[in-house]
Amino acid sequence: MKENMGDLRRSHMCGNLRMSNVDEEVILMGWVQRERNLGSLIFVDLRDTTGICQIVFDSTVSNEIFNKASKLRSEFVVAVRGKVRKRESINPEIPTGEIEVLAEELRILNTSNTPPIYIKDGDNVSESMRLKYRYLDLRKPSMQNNLKVRHKVAKLVRDFLDENHFIEIETPMLTKPTPEGARDYLVPSRVNPGHFYALPQSPQLMKQLLMISGMDRYYQIVRCFRDEDLRANRQPEFTQIDMEMSFVDVDDVIKLNEQLLYKLFKEFKGIEIELPIQRMTYREAMERFGVDKPDLRFGFELTDITDIVVNSDFKVFSGTIENKGYVKGINVKGYGDEFSRKDISNLESYVKDFGAKGLVWMKITSDGITSPIVKFLSQEEVNRILDRMEAEEGDLLLFIADKPAVVFDSLGNLRKEVARRLNLLDDNEFKLVWITEFPLFEYDDEEGRYVAKHHPFTHPMEEDIHLLETQPEKVRAKAYDIVINGDEIGGGSIRISDQDLQKRMFKALGFSEEEAWDKFGFLLEAFKYGTPPHGGIAYGFDRLIMLLTGNNNIRDVIAFPKTQSATCLLTEAPTAVSEEQLKELHVKLDL
Amino acid sequence: MKENMGDLRRSHMCGNLRMSNVDEEVILMGWVQRERNLGSLIFVDLRDTTGICQIVFDSTVSNEIFNKASKLRSEFVVAVRGKVRKRESINPEIPTGEIEVLAEELRILNTSNTPPIYIKDGDNVSESMRLKYRYLDLRKPSMQNNLKVRHKVAKLVRDFLDENHFIEIETPMLTKPTPEGARDYLVPSRVNPGHFYALPQSPQLMKQLLMISGMDRYYQIVRCFRDEDLRANRQPEFTQIDMEMSFVDVDDVIKLNEQLLYKLFKEFKGIEIELPIQRMTYREAMERFGVDKPDLRFGFELTDITDIVVNSDFKVFSGTIENKGYVKGINVKGYGDEFSRKDISNLESYVKDFGAKGLVWMKITSDGITSPIVKFLSQEEVNRILDRMEAEEGDLLLFIADKPAVVFDSLGNLRKEVARRLNLLDDNEFKLVWITEFPLFEYDDEEGRYVAKHHPFTHPMEEDIHLLETQPEKVRAKAYDIVINGDEIGGGSIRISDQDLQKRMFKALGFSEEEAWDKFGFLLEAFKYGTPPHGGIAYGFDRLIMLLTGNNNIRDVIAFPKTQSATCLLTEAPTAVSEEQLKELHVKLDL
Repeated sequence: MKENMGDLRRSHMCGNLRMSNVDEEVILMGWVQRERNLGSLIFVDLRDTTGICQIVFDSTVSNEIFNKASKLRSEFVVAVRGKVRKRESINPEIPTGEIEVLAEELRILNTSNTPPIYIKDGDNVSESMRLKYRYLDLRKPSMQNNLKVRHKVAKLVRDFLDENHFIEIETPMLTKPTPEGARDYLVPSRVNPGHFYALPQSPQLMKQLLMISGMDRYYQIVRCFRDEDLRANRQPEFTQIDMEMSFVDVDDVIKLNEQLLYKLFKEFKGIEIELPIQRMTYREAMERFGVDKPDLRFGFELTDITDIVVNSDFKVFSGTIENKGYVKGINVKGYGDEFSRKDISNLESYVKDFGAKGLVWMKITSDGITSPIVKFLSQEEVNRILDRMEAEEGDLLLFIADKPAVVFDSLGNLRKEVARRLNLLDDNEFKLVWITEFPLFEYDDEEGRYVAKHHPFTHPMEEDIHLLETQPEKVRAKAYDIVINGDEIGGGSIRISDQDLQKRMFKALGFSEEEAWDKFGFLLEAFKYGTPPHGGIAYGFDRLIMLLTGNNNIRDVIAFPKTQSATCLLTEAPTAVSEEQLKELHVKLDL
Repeated sequence: MKENMGDLRRSHMCGNLRMSNVDEEVILMGWVQRERNLGSLIFVDLRDTTGICQIVFDSTVSNEIFNKASKLRSEFVVAVRGKVRKRESINPEIPTGEIEVLAEELRILNTSNTPPIYIKDGDNVSESMRLKYRYLDLRKPSMQNNLKVRHKVAKLVRDFLDENHFIEIETPMLTKPTPEGARDYLVPSRVNPGHFYALPQSPQLMKQLLMISGMDRYYQIVRCFRDEDLRANRQPEFTQIDMEMSFVDVDDVIKLNEQLLYKLFKEFKGIEIELPIQRMTYREAMERFGVDKPDLRFGFELTDITDIVVNSDFKVFSGTIENKGYVKGINVKGYGDEFSRKDISNLESYVKDFGAKGLVWMKITSDGITSPIVKFLSQEEVNRILDRMEAEEGDLLLFIADKPAVVFDSLGNLRKEVARRLNLLDDNEFKLVWITEFPLFEYDDEEGRYVAKHHPFTHPMEEDIHLLETQPEKVRAKAYDIVINGDEIGGGSIRISDQDLQKRMFKALGFSEEEAWDKFGFLLEAFKYGTPPHGGIAYGFDRLIMLLTGNNNIRDVIAFPKTQSATCLLTEAPTAVSEEQLKELHVKLDL
């Protein structure tokens, strides 16, 4: 039944035909979305990447073609030649709904078994089936759109950076294992027995070397790899928009990137974001929102009541404070009635996932305060708390008393969870904020030393450099994240360009000179030969596309993603390999 | 001595200043290319990525700045504020040679040790030093230009393909090991003990799946990996311009790519290549040039004299023919005088590298024929040979008698070698040719079976399909290479889209149904659900850049290349890793 295309070539794409094409002879090629045989007429919805067009096979025009058309089934691949005409019954749901094509020639280019998943959006099939039959899943209009937006965003980014004198430079994929980072993917070397390449976690060192090379402005849309346990929306390989500039400080990087973000939101969301984008220090973000990537689409900011309850008879509060804890709360303003005791109990379970021991609540009703703990507080304490929290009738107050880190984390996340449950998150509203002045270090309890919060090449703020040796915990970095609706979409920093400062940095991280040299020797060597001031930023490209397409599953914006156990259900990678292959690579299994 | 940039920002780039900027105050930043202290004046050549500008420090303007300037050494990084003025002695060698900048402010942003290699083109330093100090090597104008052209070519390609409705889609780097290909780089999986990913040798299967997905037109500028022993101009990781189209046949792919090639040569070489580009079948290329990637910039085509000498008394000829060999020659027309006996003896050594047992020669001089073998030939044989070879006074005839493969290979390469020695290869002349109708199979002596010449998904020519089972060696493929000046720059094919034909292909390759399913099961499964006719092409991006920049060392067009032993002299990758790391990956060393 199958035929060749022969000399037939497409004249038009299915989704582009309009009333203006009426009476034209067209040749279309695509897939049968569905077919209906009405006895003397067969209607076929023909689909290509641009959309759907209705084809009519009329037995009174040609019995031969009609008979061939009667064999068509879903997902057959066909070529159709025919004339465009106005439809009798217009379909306002699709752009081509005013016209149809009366077929004069039909070639069946390929047949199809019944597909194991439907080729339509919003189908409820399991994700594992979608991944196994990815080539069918990608036929869905929404999935095609995701990949098209991804292409267009990359194009816009490249055009913008090219106009701004950035050069795209490819950095190696077979590179040196990363000290001080996440877990590397390793690649055994055949030619150098016992030695391994690592796949890059980011081109960080390479792009710094390019600045030392005088390349001035570098960018790359580049694959990166981290062998971490996969949480939702993480992939073992992911894509970054990576850039670096010479002779710049924080404001220069931010300003240029604001222009880029403006273009992206205008082009893909039809929104003109306000410039400059607001900035917030890390400290302010933590105090007001409990997290360093605050969602600014709603309120419920954190309020500290530690000073009010420091001497309270309610030991949950005062006892925690005695152990260097805090008591903070949020006011779920005006939504008190939306939360039953059971709802609040659910919220308590939620915060326990973040290490909180419990959740204290007060509801302000027309009958006064409802709360299991109000009886343990003095009237003055209650009044001061209500005053501080700006509490009014209809409000729900939620408090956590715990170690500072737990208070921030659990309350910061609770704030977002409450907003989610109240459906306050509008996918079409975008709140952008730069978070700045991050701490340079954070203390790693496991390693018993300070580690770099971003990476060991981040430049400290000038005014804090003198604290490097004495109070490292107080040193702030020339680092910045762009946070959109509570997601960190990108982040970067000004880098250290001075070898002496870099040595002090390594020392603060607890490396001996020898260790530093061993880990980063080639960079330290490069620093000797005229390094310009430089800095940059990297965006999570996959996350950016999720944001711009309104998807909340990272796998929906990647053509061939992996599962949470890092497998590809389509190709079944990774797989076993032969012993000879391993022998050539000088390794053997150690199961 | 080091200072911060502070509020100073570049107003101009060094290489862009012209007479029209005279009297403007400018701020430049860059590297000290060289400095000359004339006592009361210091001249500094300041370099950034755009070029060089002369800075003057005048002690009568400011003693303080002059003294600071006296500390400048090569490769120091500086910021200079000053006024542009006309130079007294114009330097016509550089674009900024008419002007200089009289410095009013100087900040030394960084110092530099004396660089271990000179920052200038054409320096004779060893390549290993250049690779070890790559960040210094990349400061050279020629190297910066190579990377800029690379960026611009990628940009042009992307713009062109975008205009032609191609979508760039990223395919996985952690993928399934390739059956039937070169050696894979393998990546052990931590989460799936004993299993391995492979880095892709090309996105071949993925792009075919994208066509099955209805994505219609795909492209990607993509890193590929082959763990092969490295010959000159091979790298373990290399970049391809990869594309695939649906609903096309050979002519469609070729036509679109001719438009792309036209644009590339116009933009980067200022040459309007003639379209359509000439085509030559594989068979014709082999017969006329001995190779499937002929350099058409010169003649010396192969001529067959087998029939003339089949019964010759000269057993080197007739004996070879008896053993199914050929005798072919080239006429180095008009250059007989250029080759001494010693030169010819060198050529003989050259062809022995290609397996030839010897080289037979005849020189046509005013005194007749000079040749060590003419005495073994009859007068009639000599006459017929001279006639066939169109030999005249001043010509040199070179013959090889051997097995057909050796004759083609050694004579095809000898032809190029002779042209090289005669300096006939003009780097600014470009001869493009499509080689078509490749054999679908070649016989693999080692494996004792036919293997795919391109890959197992290549579509046979329609008129040869019936020979698949009976005379596979005669089946030609819908495959095409674009050859420029004797280099294969790109190649592709129309792919099999029919599952039955694909099964016949696997059978011809000697795979049982089970083996085929085991190797390519997911593709065979995909073929069941409506595969469109499709085909594509991939260009070697690195080679294309070599061609367009006139470089003949692949490492000069890659930012951070590897050596022939697949190491990076800069980072020292690959390196040893810890036992814990290997343990996590379920492998151990096997040295």
